[in-house]
This record gives sequence, structure tokens and C-alpha cells, in this order.
Amino acid sequence: MYSIIRKKRDGKELSREEIQKFVKGYTNGEIPDYQAAALLMAICLNGMNERETTDLTMAMAHSGDTIDLSMLGELSSDKHSSGGVGDKTTLIAIPIAAVLGCKIAKMSGRGLGHTGGTIDKLESIEGYLTELSPQKLMEQTQKIGIALTAQSGNLAPADKKIYALRDVTATVDSIPLIASSIMSKKLASGAKNIVLDVKVGSGAFMKDIESARSLAKCMVEIGRNCKRNVRAILTNMDVPLGSCVGNSLEVIESVNVLKGKGDKNLLDISCILAAHMASMALRKPYEKMLQEAYNAVKSGAAYGKFLTWIKEQGGNIAYIEDTDLFEKASKEIEVKCEKTGYISSLDAQAVGNICVEAGGGRKEKGDKIDYSAGIVLIKQRGDWVEKGEIIAKIYTNKGNITEKLQKDFLSAVEISDECPKQQPLVYEVVE
Amino acid sequence: MYSIIRKKRDGKELSREEIQKFVKGYTNGEIPDYQAAALLMAICLNGMNERETTDLTMAMAHSGDTIDLSMLGELSSDKHSSGGVGDKTTLIAIPIAAVLGCKIAKMSGRGLGHTGGTIDKLESIEGYLTELSPQKLMEQTQKIGIALTAQSGNLAPADKKIYALRDVTATVDSIPLIASSIMSKKLASGAKNIVLDVKVGSGAFMKDIESARSLAKCMVEIGRNCKRNVRAILTNMDVPLGSCVGNSLEVIESVNVLKGKGDKNLLDISCILAAHMASMALRKPYEKMLQEAYNAVKSGAAYGKFLTWIKEQGGNIAYIEDTDLFEKASKEIEVKCEKTGYISSLDAQAVGNICVEAGGGRKEKGDKIDYSAGIVLIKQRGDWVEKGEIIAKIYTNKGNITEKLQKDFLSAVEISDECPKQQPLVYEVVE
Repeated sequence: MYSIIRKKRDGKELSREEIQKFVKGYTNGEIPDYQAAALLMAICLNGMNERETTDLTMAMAHSGDTIDLSMLGELSSDKHSSGGVGDKTTLIAIPIAAVLGCKIAKMSGRGLGHTGGTIDKLESIEGYLTELSPQKLMEQTQKIGIALTAQSGNLAPADKKIYALRDVTATVDSIPLIASSIMSKKLASGAKNIVLDVKVGSGAFMKDIESARSLAKCMVEIGRNCKRNVRAILTNMDVPLGSCVGNSLEVIESVNVLKGKGDKNLLDISCILAAHMASMALRKPYEKMLQEAYNAVKSGAAYGKFLTWIKEQGGNIAYIEDTDLFEKASKEIEVKCEKTGYISSLDAQAVGNICVEAGGGRKEKGDKIDYSAGIVLIKQRGDWVEKGEIIAKIYTNKGNITEKLQKDFLSAVEISDECPKQQPLVYEVVE
Repeated sequence: MYSIIRKKRDGKELSREEIQKFVKGYTNGEIPDYQAAALLMAICLNGMNERETTDLTMAMAHSGDTIDLSMLGELSSDKHSSGGVGDKTTLIAIPIAAVLGCKIAKMSGRGLGHTGGTIDKLESIEGYLTELSPQKLMEQTQKIGIALTAQSGNLAPADKKIYALRDVTATVDSIPLIASSIMSKKLASGAKNIVLDVKVGSGAFMKDIESARSLAKCMVEIGRNCKRNVRAILTNMDVPLGSCVGNSLEVIESVNVLKGKGDKNLLDISCILAAHMASMALRKPYEKMLQEAYNAVKSGAAYGKFLTWIKEQGGNIAYIEDTDLFEKASKEIEVKCEKTGYISSLDAQAVGNICVEAGGGRKEKGDKIDYSAGIVLIKQRGDWVEKGEIIAKIYTNKGNITEKLQKDFLSAVEISDECPKQQPLVYEVVE
């Protein structure tokens, strides 16, 4: 291990064997944390080329269980988001993609910090089972086209251990390390076709287009080297996606979009993601798939697929059919604008943190979540607001927090005399 | 600590408070090894400026006990070698410097790997006490001008802990880290005047002049910032120094030099080091001190001082007066030259390793040493040798090792038709 660290410290290329030795040795405890930390810092500063990054990804992907989706053939499809605020696209895009013909046996994660997690959102639906056996995962996907479970304990354990170490050693910000972390889990999850939603902006891990593009290219390269079809879509995360942030609030918003009465941006981006998944899985033109995606929503087929999925997985669909059944938070805090003008910025990360403060997210792994807590944005970036007008409602069951949440929200908003330039929803597609 | 690592990872300057927080926190166990390892790798790759390096040195120097030599006033002097093969200059230079008027209350270390340590060499003298109390150290220095003890357990404990971590995380090769490690111990040891013998060459830690010069400059700067007089002498370590390598063999050679009948290079370099010490301590011209150094040897005063020192510290001076009393190794292995020509190279590191193999050094901390084991070089670099001529004798008490040692020694020697260019003994002085 010493010579491996020294090699990377000196800016040299590590061989596949060296990378495998590190991943295996660190996972089984033979290599101590401090040597792994030194190597990770050396990687962080001296980088890794495409071959090294692919080898690292493969070694982590094969460090534990891998899901065999070969029974789903070329149709197995997955989607990953690099993490955002109000990002409920999985709930909308996968029923659409399933209607189009994709087979989605998917694993999702929980939220941490300012970003939410799909599993938490689904758990806000009474009865939804987040722990499926591999057999049930496969059977359900074959039957209805969708199954979505929490990540198995032994999926890419090397990534889990390495990520925990990166988190405390300031070695998270490294394109090869981020890319291999994400892709190792996606490879172990077995799908042939993978759409990566790489969020860009103040609420995202990647703050600018350049670094998001580098990450996207790196992940697409890894996918190609591992014989998977991978497309990465760079999407805007300067502002929260849609108008709801918080677990059950986001389920309700997703249901509304699937019923054809939700946020236009959210519908667009979900259709785009679903169309890319279907275009890869079915080898059909993207534009045609995009048209079919909108049709699947319009016809009610996507909503029907969503109901089937939730029901099949134990969820009480009465909640979906009547979203008023979701438990409401005891407090509804109105946030009133202090100035008149255009909302020129609405900081996504700050809104994510307010959701955590209200009880809707986790500061630390293992924290309990209040599914009813969250934020509804009444006004969005670009909207004209009058002083005293309600711009948002914050839902919480916590006491003594009203003024803090109002103040935090107002700090997240900028009001300007000029109407801000419209931002694109999708920056670019990397494939 | 996370933000400190991130700052250095991003190539930024750490404040004094941040550096102190790291050193204190790591020494008392609040900061875990893996975070320290990540920071050390970031320092290794992104460097530290003069101010940061000084602050790191000061923080390490003050992490444990510090020796107060203020009773010795401006005369307190110390010498440090960056580690070499056959480097017994301390044994010769400090009696000379004491004759010239320096007060030397010194701590030395033990050997590890291919380099020897002064304490091991002195321990080969029957009765020599290597553990002096601070009080005894001071009293003896005031009385006779010299006291030399093993490093106290709690001298710069931060350096000890950080060095052990660097050793296993490939973060040893960093000028600011090497300089601060050496200087922290020197500062804690309390001397006002410090001569640093920075070895350069195949047998040294610094393989080339440029890196040795950078290290030397860095240490001199630290000294200046900490109000110490520091000079660094860059000396040759491509070949072993003198003709003996091994603990009691080196004591014998030192005694011979002090008696005026030893190796010329060894005498020269010892006088140079002693003259620099005295010139700083007494504020007198170096050239004058150098003359006095040679005179101190010629007159027998230096030898007399050596006897006084060894006797005062419990050593049996019968061994010094008759070096034949030193126990001899059971085997004397002759190495015969296989070719005729000039010795063009005699690899110091390889010779050091042969000494370790023969039993005269340590592979790991805590290994026991055979004081009688070692090597006597019959021929040196630049000498003409005939095929079959004895070029060295190796002394060992180990069995089944003769052929290996002979083979290793012959591999360390290069024979050429041309007489090699003479190498300088001293490359330059940095002050």
C-alpha cells in the first residue's frame, strides 16, 4: 500500500492490480484508514485518468453483491440524480418510462443534508415497502415494469466505506472519486441503460457547468468502458425543482404532475429523463420517445402505472387517489415578502436547509424524518411580488422555530427591480 | 479539522492557530490518524510557506518537554546530521568544539535502516550511560563542556507521532515536513547555535544538491524566525564517510582521528563542523576557528576532551585508550575485487544495508544491534585495485551469510578503467 500511495503522490498512473488491491484491502480492513486517507488525498490532488477511474469503479462495484438483471435483457433501465432540492423526478419519470417499455428494477437512497432522497419520499406513503428481496425486486419488475427498493446493505460496500472516509478527510471534491462512487453503485445495481441527472447550480453538488460537464463525461466514459449505455443530462439546480420541498409534499406534487395538473418544468424534465431512458433501452429516436412520454402523461397511462406500482409494493393508494389524506404538519408558517420587485434568486441549498430545520430532512445519518414537514413555494424565480405578499408556506411540527424559518427563507430570496433572465432547464446532454 | 484539510487541499495558507490546532489535537488524540494523514498528504503535495513551516515547527517543539539551556548562555551549541553511512562526525566534532569553547548539551538518536545513530555507537563503549536526567545533562555540560544523551521520551512528542504516520503514508518526502521535524527537536533541545550537516548523495535522504539546498534553506529560515543561529553544511554522502561502518568500528575510527592518525576526510569534515559551531557560539571568524579546530586535534586537547567526556558519562576509557579491547565479531569476511581498475563508485546506501545485514543496524525499531558487526573499507572511491585484491572486510557474528555479504558488497562497487573525478567533501554552506 505504501508504494501505491507514493506512486499516486508522485502523479503516476496506478495499475488495475494496484487499484484492486487498495479497494479489496480497505474493504476487508487490511489497509488502515490513515493509508486510505493519504491515497484519497493524493487522488484528489493528482487525479486519475479514464482507465484508472474505470478500474476503481469496477473494483468498488464488485466489492459486494451485484444485482443480476440479465433476465430483463436490454430493457433494464436506471436513473440517478446527483442530488437536488425538490427533485422528485424519479417518482414521475419511472412510471412514464415503464409505460414506454423500460424495465426498472431500481435502488434508491435516503436524503442527507439539504438534498432529499427518493426512499424517504416513498416512505411517506402508508404501507410502502422499501425493503424488497432480490427475488421480489425481479418478479415485480417483470410483472409491472417497476420496483423500487432501498439500497441493499452489501451493495458496493467499498464505496460506502470509502465515501465515509472521504466525508471526514475533505476528499469528496474529486471528479474521479465522485464519478466512481456513483457509477460503482449503478454498475452493481445491474441496469443496462442508465440516465444520470447531473444537477448544476447553488443547490447542487456541482456549482458550475464546467465541473458538472467533467463529472458527466467521466461517468459516461466509465459506462462505455463497462458496456453500459449511459447518458448524462445537466439540469438546473439554482432554484428548487417544482414548488414543493419535503417528503409527502413532494409525493403530492408528483401525483399532480402525473395527473396532468402539475408544474410545467417538473413535467418537462421528467419526460426528458424518461425519454432518454426509453430511447436507450428500446433503441428508438429520442424525439419520438419524448413525444410518447408526454402522451403517457396526457393519456393517464403514467398515472395508472404509478398507482399499480405503489399498490404492488404495499402502499395505500387511497393516499394517491386523494392526497388530502396525507397527514398535515401542525403549523403552517406564512412567509411574506418584505420588498416589492422580481424574485431574482431563490437559493436552492438554503431552501433545502430550511426543510431540514423544519424536520423534513436529516442533519446526520439515522436522524428521524417528519414526512409532513417542508415548504411550498407560492412564488418562483422570475415572479413579480408585492411587499407583504405571501411567497411561501413552511410546514413543521416543531415549536419555537417560526421566526427563524421565516428569516432563513427571506435570506434565501433576492428581490430585484429587473426581471431576471430565464434559465434553461436542461443545459446539455453528454453521451 | 475538516476545514483545515480542505484549505490545504485547495492550496491555501494555514494560519498559526490552525496549525497549532492540528498539532495539539493530533498529539492528544482528538484528531484521528486518517484526518492527519489527509492533511499531511495535502501538505506534501501543496507545500507550506516559510511562515507556516515555522509555525508547524514551533507547535511541534512545544508539544512536550523543552530543555532550558539558558544557563549555558550564548555558548550552547548543537549539531545535527540528516543521516549517513559511516557518519561518526559527532564523536569527533563535539570534543573539538568543546575545546574551542562551545557548551554542548546534546541529544542524539538511534540508527534505523541503512543509517547509523550516535547513541548506538556510544553504547558500544562499556558502561556509557545513554540516559541522563535533565539535571545531570546540565551539570555535566557546565563542568566539562559536553554531555550526550538519548532523546527524552517526551521531547517533541508531536513530531514523533506525526513522523510515525508519515512513515506509513508516503508523506516523508516533503521539505517543510522534513525541516519542521528536524528543527522541532533541535528547538526543543534548547541550543542557541545549531550546525546542520545535510548529507547529499546516494546514501543520504537527499539524493541531489537542489533538494538538499532547499531543505537547508528551509531549516536556516526556521532557525532565524525562532532566534537561533543556524548554519547548514551540505556534505557528500555518495560514499560512506571514512573507512569504517558499524558501531564499535566507528568508535575506533573516531578515536584514531582524534589521536591524529585517522582518515583525512573525516578529520576535515569534523573540523569544519566544529569550526562552524564555535564561530557561531563565540562570534569569531570561521577561518580562525577552523585553524583552532585542527590545532585542538594536533595538540591532543580534543582527544583529552573525548576521554574526559566518556569517563564522566560512565564509559570505560580503557576501551578508548586501547581500542583492541572492543569485542571482535567471530567472522572476518574478506571481499576480493573481481576486476582490475579504478573504484568509480561505492554505494553508501548499499554499504549501510550490508552493515544492517551483518547485524550492525536495525531493520525495525527495537531490533537488537550487534555492536561488533560492520565493514572496514580497505579501498575507497578513486583507488586503483587489482583483480583478487581485498577491498573490504566485513565483520559479523551471523552464520550462513558470507557469500551473500560478499555478493552484496561487490554489487555496491563499480570498477572502471578511468579514474573517477574527485568529489567535493563539502558542497556549500547555507546560512
